Amino acid sequence: MLKKMKEHPQKMKVVSLRHLLVISLALNFGLISKVLFDGGDKRAHEFYCVTEKHDAEGPKSDDSRVEKKNKYLDTTTSSLSSHSTAANHDSSAVIDLDHGDPTMYERYWQQMGDKTSIVISGWQSISYFSDVKNLCWFLESEFATAVVRLHKLVGNVVTEGHHIVVGTGSTQLFQAVLYALCPTNATEPISVVSAAPFYSSYPLMTDFLKSGLFKWGGDAHKFSKEKPYIELVTSPNNPDGSSRQPVVNRNEGILVHDLAYYWPQYTPISFAANHDIMLFTVSKSTGHAGIRIGWALVKDQDVAKRMTEFIVLNTIGVSKDSQLRAAKILNAVADSIDDNPKGTETFFQYGYNLMEMRWNQLRAAVNKSRLFSLPNFSSGTCTFTSRSFEPLPAFAWLKCEAGIEDCESFLREHKILTRGGKHFGVSSEYVRISMLDRDEKFDHFTQRLSKINS
Amino acid sequence: MLKKMKEHPQKMKVVSLRHLLVISLALNFGLISKVLFDGGDKRAHEFYCVTEKHDAEGPKSDDSRVEKKNKYLDTTTSSLSSHSTAANHDSSAVIDLDHGDPTMYERYWQQMGDKTSIVISGWQSISYFSDVKNLCWFLESEFATAVVRLHKLVGNVVTEGHHIVVGTGSTQLFQAVLYALCPTNATEPISVVSAAPFYSSYPLMTDFLKSGLFKWGGDAHKFSKEKPYIELVTSPNNPDGSSRQPVVNRNEGILVHDLAYYWPQYTPISFAANHDIMLFTVSKSTGHAGIRIGWALVKDQDVAKRMTEFIVLNTIGVSKDSQLRAAKILNAVADSIDDNPKGTETFFQYGYNLMEMRWNQLRAAVNKSRLFSLPNFSSGTCTFTSRSFEPLPAFAWLKCEAGIEDCESFLREHKILTRGGKHFGVSSEYVRISMLDRDEKFDHFTQRLSKINS
Repeated sequence: MLKKMKEHPQKMKVVSLRHLLVISLALNFGLISKVLFDGGDKRAHEFYCVTEKHDAEGPKSDDSRVEKKNKYLDTTTSSLSSHSTAANHDSSAVIDLDHGDPTMYERYWQQMGDKTSIVISGWQSISYFSDVKNLCWFLESEFATAVVRLHKLVGNVVTEGHHIVVGTGSTQLFQAVLYALCPTNATEPISVVSAAPFYSSYPLMTDFLKSGLFKWGGDAHKFSKEKPYIELVTSPNNPDGSSRQPVVNRNEGILVHDLAYYWPQYTPISFAANHDIMLFTVSKSTGHAGIRIGWALVKDQDVAKRMTEFIVLNTIGVSKDSQLRAAKILNAVADSIDDNPKGTETFFQYGYNLMEMRWNQLRAAVNKSRLFSLPNFSSGTCTFTSRSFEPLPAFAWLKCEAGIEDCESFLREHKILTRGGKHFGVSSEYVRISMLDRDEKFDHFTQRLSKINS
Repeated sequence: MLKKMKEHPQKMKVVSLRHLLVISLALNFGLISKVLFDGGDKRAHEFYCVTEKHDAEGPKSDDSRVEKKNKYLDTTTSSLSSHSTAANHDSSAVIDLDHGDPTMYERYWQQMGDKTSIVISGWQSISYFSDVKNLCWFLESEFATAVVRLHKLVGNVVTEGHHIVVGTGSTQLFQAVLYALCPTNATEPISVVSAAPFYSSYPLMTDFLKSGLFKWGGDAHKFSKEKPYIELVTSPNNPDGSSRQPVVNRNEGILVHDLAYYWPQYTPISFAANHDIMLFTVSKSTGHAGIRIGWALVKDQDVAKRMTEFIVLNTIGVSKDSQLRAAKILNAVADSIDDNPKGTETFFQYGYNLMEMRWNQLRAAVNKSRLFSLPNFSSGTCTFTSRSFEPLPAFAWLKCEAGIEDCESFLREHKILTRGGKHFGVSSEYVRISMLDRDEKFDHFTQRLSKINS
């Protein structure tokens, strides 16, 4: 067969570097690192030093890499003990903040020790089924209970009157929603829109299979077709952190609310959201991206059924192990609120304090450099904490000033990898920068940014 | 928005009973139970008794259900101590063997006790990444190592020269393969074919999103287009257990080998498969369906990259927790071979012995009834066990004789739920019956089948 492949190169389309980069950029993490590393790019070595930290064995053929990795691990360890230590760092190292890998939270969970460990026996997870009485029959009841408990405690969402559908991350749920909302007998695909700047993955996730059911329709502000449409309302918005409302507002529209960042470490909880379709993920709420668990709250039973159907056809359900772990973790977050001895930090306090420190640090760096600007947010009162504060988004939406037209390329010259505005449907003067990486990388980034002045 | 939904019923297409049934039938387990239960079908209550066993809390509003559930649990417990106990059972109970839920293996893993338990700490699975040096960067190296180890021990597959891509079950990998093999710039979707009887999910998984990249092309025997195509070769075949070879054999074809059942409890391992694309799943090899882990072995690097790309766009990787658990379980199976004290059963011996007993039991019931027939298989020598034996497929492919044209309906009259031949692209005289359910259900089934004689 391989011979046949070679004879038919059009069928075995080679993934170009550009193609992989586009996909990488459009997703919330740095596959870019892999491409650079594989591609033999001059920066790969330094890049490895910064990002190659997940490999258990370490590289085998290059001692200098091992040394650099160990150095990295040392500094990671030291960063555990002191957030504010200004480590000396290699000015030639590439700092990748293109993706939203939420490693910032690792320290909190390490501090929790065994409290959130889970034991799973070999005879668990045999059956496909979790609860055949539930519309979403692969939903573990422990997970569903934990979701409802945490939402009630935080007050960010009204869970009553909603069905819970679990997904392999909110990415799968997003696709399940599109499938659920589209009639199978339509003569043309339904338009999927979102106000720019929109999450860079939306267009790719919508169009990668060239579905006849749905099609990316671009910026919701520019949508003018007098036809049915689906509008994605992301609030707080990825990439710019703004609070969002629907913008098309026509009768033929269906709204999907992506509330991945509607948690009190990122934004004041101003009301309990009660929309028809709401998407959440543990990746951004608790930081467990590798667990691949998201959930949807859905009012309409038939939509929830169709979403379940999508997940059955796509992956025959969702990992039970990860659902059980997610339940444990969400309950640990809830416990940190419920059983909070005086003076101890709840999970959300931890996240808020770190985000506040980081935003102050970033704004100071931007002020020092004078080449950039950041969005300003109004304060709001958080019903959960009873405090008033400004939003502290998971991404910084940085604008290059002083006539710099391509901010992503400009920062790349300074070995800072970000995601440019064009991926979000807007001008290249903007870039999105992750605020959720480990302490040391964030410190390096703000130090370097503050020194850019030409 | 819900109001808008109601105003546009064409957008919010209600899932009809029939539609759900079709999907259920086409997948490898009984969503049918849910439909029957929800639909208020007369049989729902009995059905519940047989299948409603995964609910941790038990039903709250119907005491008779609780009683029946407890009765079920009791008999399950008793079946642990003696497989051959002929339990008295309710002749009015519906026996659902439509799906391939591999609960047969639960007992083995219970007997293993804590040996296969896994502890996962709260700070694990934070990052999206597993190994950025690997082409499939969300692949846990422990899992990859366990896959290679087990294949080497069993000798069913040549792993050298293949990339490993992990998926959320082989269902996701199947879709990833289609995406990987289809050029994005083709003028029409590529045909996907498989020789009938083919796995009933293939058509649905291929067509449910109406992709412009690929389209179900039906029975490979009837494929006559002089155009590129993808042929799925499932061996041993689901539903009929036969060993398969490609049937179209044209230059423009690409082959995908689905080897989910190529393990020594089901079939003699006659050679180490060395195809270009091979799919496997823990659901059928070790019985852990709820873990949702499959793997592909892929020779061509670019195909493996594109499959990885699909999984990134579809679910941003695969649960790390489940990969770690799958590694533990595959290693336990390997350990049972490697460190096998005299007289103890390896995992595959356990599976083989049970399958052999069940097939004997089924053939005896069929002989007694005289209304049915089963395929006959030739013996082959297994390179793994050095024994000669006949295949013992995970599904029985039963044919109704004596002029019964619709075997599924006929058996349903006797309260046995199976999946009819039309879902597999062949005559309704055939049905597929799961051989992998729990002991008690299988015993009930063969007892009832043996008594059907009109």
